[in-house]
Amino acid sequence: MSTESDQSAGDHDTACRHVLPVFHATHAARMRTIDFPVGAERGRLLETIASALSSHRDPIIAAAADETALLPAELAPEFDRMVGTLRMFSALVADGSWVHAAIDTPSGSAIGPTHDVRRLLVPLGPVAVFSASNFPLAYGVCGGDSASALAAGCPVVVKEHPAHPRTGRLLADIVAAAVGPDFVGYLENRDPADFGVAELLVPSVCAVGFTGSTGGGAAIQLLASAAPVPVPIFAEMGSVNPVIVTNAAAERRGRAIADELADSILSRFGQQCTCPGQILVPPGDGGDALVQRLAERIAGAGGRDMLAPWIRDAYVQRVDEVQRCRGVRLLARGRAKDGARGAAACLLSVDDLYIRPDDEVKNVFSQDGLRDEIFGPAAVVIRTFPDMLGDVQPRGSLTVSVYADGADDPDVEDLLDPSAPAGGSLSIAGRVIFNGPPTGVRVATAMVHGGPFPATNRPDTTAVGPRAIERWCRPVCFQNCPDALLPPELQNANPRGILRTLNGVPTRDAIA
Amino acid sequence: MSTESDQSAGDHDTACRHVLPVFHATHAARMRTIDFPVGAERGRLLETIASALSSHRDPIIAAAADETALLPAELAPEFDRMVGTLRMFSALVADGSWVHAAIDTPSGSAIGPTHDVRRLLVPLGPVAVFSASNFPLAYGVCGGDSASALAAGCPVVVKEHPAHPRTGRLLADIVAAAVGPDFVGYLENRDPADFGVAELLVPSVCAVGFTGSTGGGAAIQLLASAAPVPVPIFAEMGSVNPVIVTNAAAERRGRAIADELADSILSRFGQQCTCPGQILVPPGDGGDALVQRLAERIAGAGGRDMLAPWIRDAYVQRVDEVQRCRGVRLLARGRAKDGARGAAACLLSVDDLYIRPDDEVKNVFSQDGLRDEIFGPAAVVIRTFPDMLGDVQPRGSLTVSVYADGADDPDVEDLLDPSAPAGGSLSIAGRVIFNGPPTGVRVATAMVHGGPFPATNRPDTTAVGPRAIERWCRPVCFQNCPDALLPPELQNANPRGILRTLNGVPTRDAIA
Repeated sequence: MSTESDQSAGDHDTACRHVLPVFHATHAARMRTIDFPVGAERGRLLETIASALSSHRDPIIAAAADETALLPAELAPEFDRMVGTLRMFSALVADGSWVHAAIDTPSGSAIGPTHDVRRLLVPLGPVAVFSASNFPLAYGVCGGDSASALAAGCPVVVKEHPAHPRTGRLLADIVAAAVGPDFVGYLENRDPADFGVAELLVPSVCAVGFTGSTGGGAAIQLLASAAPVPVPIFAEMGSVNPVIVTNAAAERRGRAIADELADSILSRFGQQCTCPGQILVPPGDGGDALVQRLAERIAGAGGRDMLAPWIRDAYVQRVDEVQRCRGVRLLARGRAKDGARGAAACLLSVDDLYIRPDDEVKNVFSQDGLRDEIFGPAAVVIRTFPDMLGDVQPRGSLTVSVYADGADDPDVEDLLDPSAPAGGSLSIAGRVIFNGPPTGVRVATAMVHGGPFPATNRPDTTAVGPRAIERWCRPVCFQNCPDALLPPELQNANPRGILRTLNGVPTRDAIA
Repeated sequence: MSTESDQSAGDHDTACRHVLPVFHATHAARMRTIDFPVGAERGRLLETIASALSSHRDPIIAAAADETALLPAELAPEFDRMVGTLRMFSALVADGSWVHAAIDTPSGSAIGPTHDVRRLLVPLGPVAVFSASNFPLAYGVCGGDSASALAAGCPVVVKEHPAHPRTGRLLADIVAAAVGPDFVGYLENRDPADFGVAELLVPSVCAVGFTGSTGGGAAIQLLASAAPVPVPIFAEMGSVNPVIVTNAAAERRGRAIADELADSILSRFGQQCTCPGQILVPPGDGGDALVQRLAERIAGAGGRDMLAPWIRDAYVQRVDEVQRCRGVRLLARGRAKDGARGAAACLLSVDDLYIRPDDEVKNVFSQDGLRDEIFGPAAVVIRTFPDMLGDVQPRGSLTVSVYADGADDPDVEDLLDPSAPAGGSLSIAGRVIFNGPPTGVRVATAMVHGGPFPATNRPDTTAVGPRAIERWCRPVCFQNCPDALLPPELQNANPRGILRTLNGVPTRDAIA
């Protein structure tokens, strides 16, 4: 399969060759009618994909490293996450309880008519996935969006990402060889930097997963909103991931926090949706030491190639934009790297915000340049008190981190007040992190990888963890339906042995 | 409070008088900061509202009957449903398990870093509710949208519906007297038929509930999509609620089915989102008898006033539109009623579709007039076989009903095949009903009152039942957070005793 790498992405005749001779409405309509395996069999489908990928671990990591300039050491845990996520969904669908089956039998206490009503989640139908530039594996052809959609019972068609076509084709080939052509389609680009989306938004595509820029997300939303039947779009877009350091934390261990944040910024050369983009550091000696150490680390960082030339160009332009904002100065710049993809890390700063009048603070932070994400190895240090977060960054983010000196830290009380309306100052994010950087996302039930706009367009969902499956489903209720005609998940005997809610109480029992 | 009814809806000085001196961004921002009660106290808030409404049962039903021309006998169960729904949510939030708390402790089997992650649902913030014309109580000021939003912890501002301003003000007054002005705002219309929505879509409104026409829903979506921060809109719009009668059912009990459907169409004079709008009746004697009886019942139905003059006009216009569609003829018309709101029930028919070539079937059903809802006491009988549903009505609907002769009815097998992709032919609806009309919605956990577009814009949600609360929330994850700083629902001791998921297993236990 390594010969794939010699093929030109611009070859029209081989475009869409893997699975979709030509991807168009008819094909998507056919995907709607394929006989998708259920239960344990669907679990085996996902496990088969995971195993096939595992047996091609080295060539996959090599292809991705070659195309993206991410390090094999960075891609190895990403590979494990891709395979681990497929296996997590394999176990989830084999158990089957994920459909949230609920049964209300006729009861005297019902509000309204006492029908027998039974509900479960059903798949929406074919899902189009626009994979991420920055996670060619964990959010690529077999990444979280595809894995969760397949787990839900939705065939998937993945749009090739122009930053890693060879990796994408390799993954698509492995899947097709392992499980056949029906489940995962792969649409190659017509030319090497094709960001086109219109061809995927055909009537038979029932939902869209997108991971990318705010602009890209907006473009897809616009196309979809013009469709006669609007389909749900789940877009993960831009996030600044504010980090707040309390006074006590800065005094006690400013230098250690700086090292942790530098590692977070420089990992994968800042090309992470959870890269810390704004760091609120209090005035005082501890804060000064933190900022000094962070500047040293960034200044000492080597230059690297970014994912693609256009991503490098956008990064350079964004850093320039921020630098030209009122009140901003450049604090440190890492070593440069030459070439079309080469870039330097960089640290910017807005100083002494705590001594400015309110109006001026507002003026500084009304500059869009300062509020938007910089995609790449850059962060803005903001010298101010923790309670200024609401003025500095009122927009949605995937994460917000608080570095504090334990639970008794006086600064933390107002920030982390769960009884405050909508969670207090930290209500801007989907994940609130205590004493840690935003990078490093655990794949687990309680994870929320999501957040208010513009971090995502659907803050009610998560893109990571088992609940990501729910994006590709909708509930259906069966009323007074004969047992034999019900889906097995809703039948009295509970033949799949799933966890269900029976008149409000969770149980795996059959109904007598 | 009965003097309210003398006030003019056009009085500018008293507009928004109940709660909101002027409803604007500042007010909504204030609503964001109110100290919303939690847990059992929030349960008591909802119970207090329910009790206050109960003690004004007679004047509320009288006001609604007077304004809407719905019968007191029709409004009485609606009143019970309004109060019952408030009490259902009162119990739900008093228990507290609705937040879907999930805890994943550090574990060696984690995918990615082994952080302690804990998730729960948090309220979005102030919710704007555009109440329904046709359910002045169950979907009015204190209806399902308001009750579920308050239960979630979201203050509510309700836009007055021009079809029942006096009822709306009476309800708003009762709520304000019972629980004060902070929780439910009420925005009067500036002129008697004000459908304006722009004033409610201010930055501090975090979500919108809408129940009304497809056009109204589209207008709100358009406004919201132009907002700098898009907010979620939950719009319930138009639904034709197809009813399919199998050959065996028609032969066995065509006349009884006709009576059940006539009752369903004529209840509330057809002004129900779940009114059966399309009835597929097979050829043959049984089908003939069914249609004949249904026509008799509609022809014999008395005229009635509709909810408002403009609703009557729209109804007359829609019936006319359908009647002018190719292939449609008028089968029966009920007795007329004079006056600006008076109307007659009516039955239309598309005959012998089963003997037409495919192309002609497609031509007939490509007419939007035939596919759209008629809001009012009208239905279209379609003489065809059950398996034609996909050709006749490919669009989303709240419900689909199947009248069959038991589980062994040969016609039903293909229709109700749960293993078919996306649920088979019945995949167009949120609720699949066996041997019953679409009207009559049980308020229960397993209920789905929703469905694919254009029935709603959010088929992943339900507007009825406890899960309606989830529309007004989003999940937040706390990572490595000290126990004392966590919301009580996520603390080790589980002080509220709620049902949580601990490492994937549901439990009410504390964590040692």
